[in-house]
Amino acid sequence: MRYFDDLSVGETIALGRTSVSEDEILAFARDFDPQPFHIDPEAAAASIYGGLIASGWHTCGLYMRLLATGFLNDTASLGSPGIDELRWPRPVRPGDELTGRLEILEVRASASRPDRGIVKSRGVMTNAAGDEVLTCVATNFVGREPEA
Amino acid sequence: MRYFDDLSVGETIALGRTSVSEDEILAFARDFDPQPFHIDPEAAAASIYGGLIASGWHTCGLYMRLLATGFLNDTASLGSPGIDELRWPRPVRPGDELTGRLEILEVRASASRPDRGIVKSRGVMTNAAGDEVLTCVATNFVGREPEA
Repeated sequence: MRYFDDLSVGETIALGRTSVSEDEILAFARDFDPQPFHIDPEAAAASIYGGLIASGWHTCGLYMRLLATGFLNDTASLGSPGIDELRWPRPVRPGDELTGRLEILEVRASASRPDRGIVKSRGVMTNAAGDEVLTCVATNFVGREPEA
Repeated sequence: MRYFDDLSVGETIALGRTSVSEDEILAFARDFDPQPFHIDPEAAAASIYGGLIASGWHTCGLYMRLLATGFLNDTASLGSPGIDELRWPRPVRPGDELTGRLEILEVRASASRPDRGIVKSRGVMTNAAGDEVLTCVATNFVGREPEA
């Protein structure tokens, strides 16, 4: 288990890889983002995107899964109050292979809660061509190691 | 169909209502955010949240569905490059009834693309108690009405 004091500014953590299929893109978008370029391959082909693209929120979910399995679930994570800057520089398309990484930008002890610290990070997910498809500056609460 | 020039700064658009069940919270989190307080009711009860809470990305998806069905699908939406500020002031819990609204903050023509404008908005989703569970300052591209 990794605690707040184990994290260092400048550290980069590899989060692993995932991929996404056309069926998964369609299923997510039908539930959460039913815009034509996410749920209708023909309409998507005629759109400015030239083909089906994943909902940006699906892209976030794919990144989040990497963050959870590659970092948070081995860390004393206490959740997040929010995100400061979320960008989708390029769309995710069916069959894309995606790789995530996390850069630690800032660490500071909580002034009000001695059991935790506050970590600011920048997450990045890239496709197989190396293009960034998601960047995300996030704040997370991380527990401090209990005293023995 | 609503176009860029139909949107006014200060306008507020009601996006309708939705709700979320425990099964939906668990299913989303198993796919995208497998942290204990999202996928394990017992671990969640013992956590700082005192019970199961939805992934923040699930909360975004629920808001996005309201935004798509209550606004974007009647608007010449061309997608979004990103979000400037995303906050989850309170968690979403099983059975929550959620209401969305959108406030138009800024509208400006695109300098490089005469077919579209750029709209900055603030989305808000509240629970039945009136507490905000999501706020989201977003940028969207919106098409201009084609000349007759």
